[in-house]
Amino acid sequence: MAEGTAAASRLRLAGLCFFLQLLTIVLFAAFVRYGPESGPGLCSPQSNCSRRDPEPGSGYARFRDAHLQALLGFGFLLAFLGRYGPGSVATSLLVVAFAVQWALLAQGLFYFSLKGKIYVGAQSMVSADFCTAAVLISSGAVLGRVNPIQMLLMTLLEVPLFACNEFILLSLMGISDSGGSLTVHTFGAYFGLMVSRALRQPRADEQEEQQDAGRQPDVFAVLGTLYLWIFWPSFASATTAQDSAEPWAVLNVYFSLAASTLAAFVLSPILYEEGTLQAAQIQDAALVGAAVMGMAGEMLLTPFGALVAGFLASHLSLLGSRFLSPILRSRLKIQDTCGVHNVHGLPGVLGTLVGTLLAGLATADAYGGRLERVFPLVAQGSRTAGGQAWWQLCALPVTLILAALGGSLTGALLGSRVLRWAPESPEAESKGPEDGRDPGASDEELGGSTLA
Amino acid sequence: MAEGTAAASRLRLAGLCFFLQLLTIVLFAAFVRYGPESGPGLCSPQSNCSRRDPEPGSGYARFRDAHLQALLGFGFLLAFLGRYGPGSVATSLLVVAFAVQWALLAQGLFYFSLKGKIYVGAQSMVSADFCTAAVLISSGAVLGRVNPIQMLLMTLLEVPLFACNEFILLSLMGISDSGGSLTVHTFGAYFGLMVSRALRQPRADEQEEQQDAGRQPDVFAVLGTLYLWIFWPSFASATTAQDSAEPWAVLNVYFSLAASTLAAFVLSPILYEEGTLQAAQIQDAALVGAAVMGMAGEMLLTPFGALVAGFLASHLSLLGSRFLSPILRSRLKIQDTCGVHNVHGLPGVLGTLVGTLLAGLATADAYGGRLERVFPLVAQGSRTAGGQAWWQLCALPVTLILAALGGSLTGALLGSRVLRWAPESPEAESKGPEDGRDPGASDEELGGSTLA
Amino acid sequence: MAEGTAAASRLRLAGLCFFLQLLTIVLFAAFVRYGPESGPGLCSPQSNCSRRDPEPGSGYARFRDAHLQALLGFGFLLAFLGRYGPGSVATSLLVVAFAVQWALLAQGLFYFSLKGKIYVGAQSMVSADFCTAAVLISSGAVLGRVNPIQMLLMTLLEVPLFACNEFILLSLMGISDSGGSLTVHTFGAYFGLMVSRALRQPRADEQEEQQDAGRQPDVFAVLGTLYLWIFWPSFASATTAQDSAEPWAVLNVYFSLAASTLAAFVLSPILYEEGTLQAAQIQDAALVGAAVMGMAGEMLLTPFGALVAGFLASHLSLLGSRFLSPILRSRLKIQDTCGVHNVHGLPGVLGTLVGTLLAGLATADAYGGRLERVFPLVAQGSRTAGGQAWWQLCALPVTLILAALGGSLTGALLGSRVLRWAPESPEAESKGPEDGRDPGASDEELGGSTLA
Repeated sequence: MAEGTAAASRLRLAGLCFFLQLLTIVLFAAFVRYGPESGPGLCSPQSNCSRRDPEPGSGYARFRDAHLQALLGFGFLLAFLGRYGPGSVATSLLVVAFAVQWALLAQGLFYFSLKGKIYVGAQSMVSADFCTAAVLISSGAVLGRVNPIQMLLMTLLEVPLFACNEFILLSLMGISDSGGSLTVHTFGAYFGLMVSRALRQPRADEQEEQQDAGRQPDVFAVLGTLYLWIFWPSFASATTAQDSAEPWAVLNVYFSLAASTLAAFVLSPILYEEGTLQAAQIQDAALVGAAVMGMAGEMLLTPFGALVAGFLASHLSLLGSRFLSPILRSRLKIQDTCGVHNVHGLPGVLGTLVGTLLAGLATADAYGGRLERVFPLVAQGSRTAGGQAWWQLCALPVTLILAALGGSLTGALLGSRVLRWAPESPEAESKGPEDGRDPGASDEELGGSTLA
Repeated sequence: MAEGTAAASRLRLAGLCFFLQLLTIVLFAAFVRYGPESGPGLCSPQSNCSRRDPEPGSGYARFRDAHLQALLGFGFLLAFLGRYGPGSVATSLLVVAFAVQWALLAQGLFYFSLKGKIYVGAQSMVSADFCTAAVLISSGAVLGRVNPIQMLLMTLLEVPLFACNEFILLSLMGISDSGGSLTVHTFGAYFGLMVSRALRQPRADEQEEQQDAGRQPDVFAVLGTLYLWIFWPSFASATTAQDSAEPWAVLNVYFSLAASTLAAFVLSPILYEEGTLQAAQIQDAALVGAAVMGMAGEMLLTPFGALVAGFLASHLSLLGSRFLSPILRSRLKIQDTCGVHNVHGLPGVLGTLVGTLLAGLATADAYGGRLERVFPLVAQGSRTAGGQAWWQLCALPVTLILAALGGSLTGALLGSRVLRWAPESPEAESKGPEDGRDPGASDEELGGSTLA
Repeated sequence: MAEGTAAASRLRLAGLCFFLQLLTIVLFAAFVRYGPESGPGLCSPQSNCSRRDPEPGSGYARFRDAHLQALLGFGFLLAFLGRYGPGSVATSLLVVAFAVQWALLAQGLFYFSLKGKIYVGAQSMVSADFCTAAVLISSGAVLGRVNPIQMLLMTLLEVPLFACNEFILLSLMGISDSGGSLTVHTFGAYFGLMVSRALRQPRADEQEEQQDAGRQPDVFAVLGTLYLWIFWPSFASATTAQDSAEPWAVLNVYFSLAASTLAAFVLSPILYEEGTLQAAQIQDAALVGAAVMGMAGEMLLTPFGALVAGFLASHLSLLGSRFLSPILRSRLKIQDTCGVHNVHGLPGVLGTLVGTLLAGLATADAYGGRLERVFPLVAQGSRTAGGQAWWQLCALPVTLILAALGGSLTGALLGSRVLRWAPESPEAESKGPEDGRDPGASDEELGGSTLA
């Protein structure tokens, strides 16, 4: 009977994949077109399609770089895949394959649509990559406690909410967040934590939750770390890359990475008895250094600021994982499989605060020609620097509320749907964490789509 | 005595390598020069050297991108190396190191020669990379049943034939096949299958041939998959990249990859009992999605077309591996170590048919300025769209015939030469597949150049 | 007590990291600024800041490419990390994180400073990457016999000396060495060998030192090799990349890689009895082929020259590792953990000799417009080709003397400091190599920062 059940849930997953792919094909056929060929950017100048890019004049240069960065951008995900070990790669790739298509539709609706059609191009691929990254961050919080079907449904719900939050922040509120401190890291982390809370199992609270750090093969952690060093600096400035400008965002991320890596060597031996620094911890430090520069990356005008921010963020993350994670687990009943709160949540919030501070200090003298690119509304005179800082700060609670509400609703929905759709899930789920050895165990049993 | 024989075959391989390297050095010294410095492309406008690029005017922009893509292009091979496991990496790298030099000479003869000299540049490096990819695909079919000496000889013979086929298709017949659906995937797969057929061992037919999927370490499959997602979209458009144009070929490959990955999750649980999807299978799906877009990549004008093509190709490949491979093995006596027929052969043929269909539907209105780039002969009025489609379709049997004939001859030659040069080969060969555990076993014994 | 000592040395490392990071933050705050935004290169034309680039006119194109190559450049290090196995990755990343910051300060002092401030940009990041590579090469010679504290102190001392040597060679002597045959490979190798000599343990001489090749996981060696093939050609020309020029340096490195890989298959079976070629050996061959093209890469005018150079370098390296390494070990008491002398030292020297030869043969006719870029002083008429060759040759003893003196002093200093700072070091050190199993053993015990 158990075999029949496993086969049934495998077929259910196959059916869901088939249905979702058919759905996106139909929606793509109905709405998605390639952008006009001749135009400098995504839409020709005479068409007034809504664009993310506030300055159409600089579109051409930006666009050509995006051609490259769309490719690099996806590789960004390697770092996330690495974090969760090969045991979850099949599920992660499934999520990625669906999330990219779905994000193109959801974001296209907000940004790239014109007269009922969505026009895609390199720029919209980069945006879809960002959205996929947020979904992967969320999945890091619930990994091992959900099956592939639930993962797909979570993606189905999170992507539109991500696009909505991004639209509110970037287009309505005029926030500058090119590297996604708020939109990607903070939103993804808190959405995932709330889903995790809604899906928690009563009995799981009693046992000590262990992080996956020690279990994942070192080779993935090492490669993920190297990948971050190589490509993330470029990714952080993917949406703002300028042909003729100094790559300050790239350099700031670079400095932040270096400082946060050194900081991991400072605090780890003090906080943890065993004192051996593992590859996964260094990768976490690199992720933290990059996450904190998401918003502030192109606002920072001095290299030492990036060093300080990376240094502080790494300390904050390590302190959080030592003292805050136990509280989250015992008091708030939030299980966090991959520690996304410390690696993405806290640095994202810190990055937003740094960005707010820098926005408040921005002056036309210090920024020069950059001002129009970083804070277009300030440059146009429709906002003061203080006003911009105020809006940047307001974006934080907006994101937190949307992520928390959306995550709770999604979690509740996933829980109930599982009960209705997959009667064998509850036992498998409660069994999964009990053996505590393999976070992918329930995937295997339920979805039948894990690596052997 | 066995030791003496192994040492002798090792020295024979060393001698062959030395001879081949000396040969290419002499040929390079006699014929190969760097292209002129100042010219926009590979040859200056006043010189009428034969060029692959039909429009010299757009050469400059294309050339600069090729500077990058020549680097990325080679990385393309990572995916292939990954497929065959680390046990075959030494042999693969040997093949790559020789094939690149040899392909420059062979292709240079056809495309880049002028007054008895071959002028190389970034563009010819990209072409050599494509040729090397085809050789690696072929080697996937025979892996485990040939020794490094035979592999080198196969390379020696396949490269000129590849260049000849490519010249007939692209220059004589005016086919548009920028991503190599026909020239790389179809040619490489069927050439390798025919070599494999000629080299088959009588006793090997009795036992079930097992695919190498389960044996290769997951880490290579995972990295190979990621690599495909990141870099292949760019590679597929390497020969046609335009600075100012929308990267439609890139996006089409992207969409095709996503759809074929999702499709693997749909059909795999239905076709295979065990239902666990392995990393190697996902990598195959990604390869399939990319192979099918080789020709159609820059012809497709709507994103949903790419989704449909990738979705269908993935299903075709999975059905082929389930139902066609046993027939190939039992009826046609073709052993296919790495399943190149399903992963490269079938998708290549399907991609050609899709390309033919699209060529027939091409209109100047729909393509606009792109028409001149994709179908220059149609744009110049010397061919109708229907005529172009007819030629595209004719290229398929031409390629199949050349690959089949060439592969059979090469296989026969390899078989006889082995008998003459390496008396211990037959026993080692027949021993190799019998233990059935390690496809690289015969390499170790014969060529002595396998990883420990 | 042993536990207390280990904890103490862990805290000592944490303290040193904290101090060094604080130091660089303070120095960055005081001296480092981003370069001016609007200027074409690192400094605006009217400011006469000292620049590495001898021709300000071509700065703009070069600069834009550097934006990309700064990212790729760092990845360069993957190859080095791979060589030393994951057991040393934590220490290596620590060194990298510090060396990049420190190199920006040290090199900035020489090249990019103006009125008491150091102006950083993409170009200075590339320079810092080169310097970090040299430090990693040096660390390869001493790996397994030093703890992380000593490694940090070695970095602290080597970086300024590297910057000084580079300044003497490139700016004072007018040497052309774009890929770092002399400045990176030769300097790094001999500095490390001298440190290793000063740190040698009396008892360690008696036992046979084993190379780490066989111990490192094949996956790293394979990935490192692939990475070299993909990215090194671009890195070798990072400082001289021209938008409009033929990428000859790239192609030359490419050809050299191919020939040196083939050469490894020629000589290995003859020199070594076991005859099985390991992935690490192929990676070494690729490194050798790249190192020899460091200086000559953009001077070579014919592709076959690169083939010959790569072929010879690979043979030289293999002969060196077979016949010279035992002499170094027994006569000169130099232990060379990762064989950096054969892989970086000898090819670097050979590359310099090839570069000297080519500089002597350079004529305005053969080089055309390239002459001004490769040999600006010759193009301006202030030097003859013979004079340039003379200076190129003189740079070799200068580098060797600086590296040897600096390495010996650093080694002596490290030895004494360890005695003063870390009383448990001598025993741990002498214990480390005795078990001879794990070169990272002493790291674990002393510095407590090794991967589990």
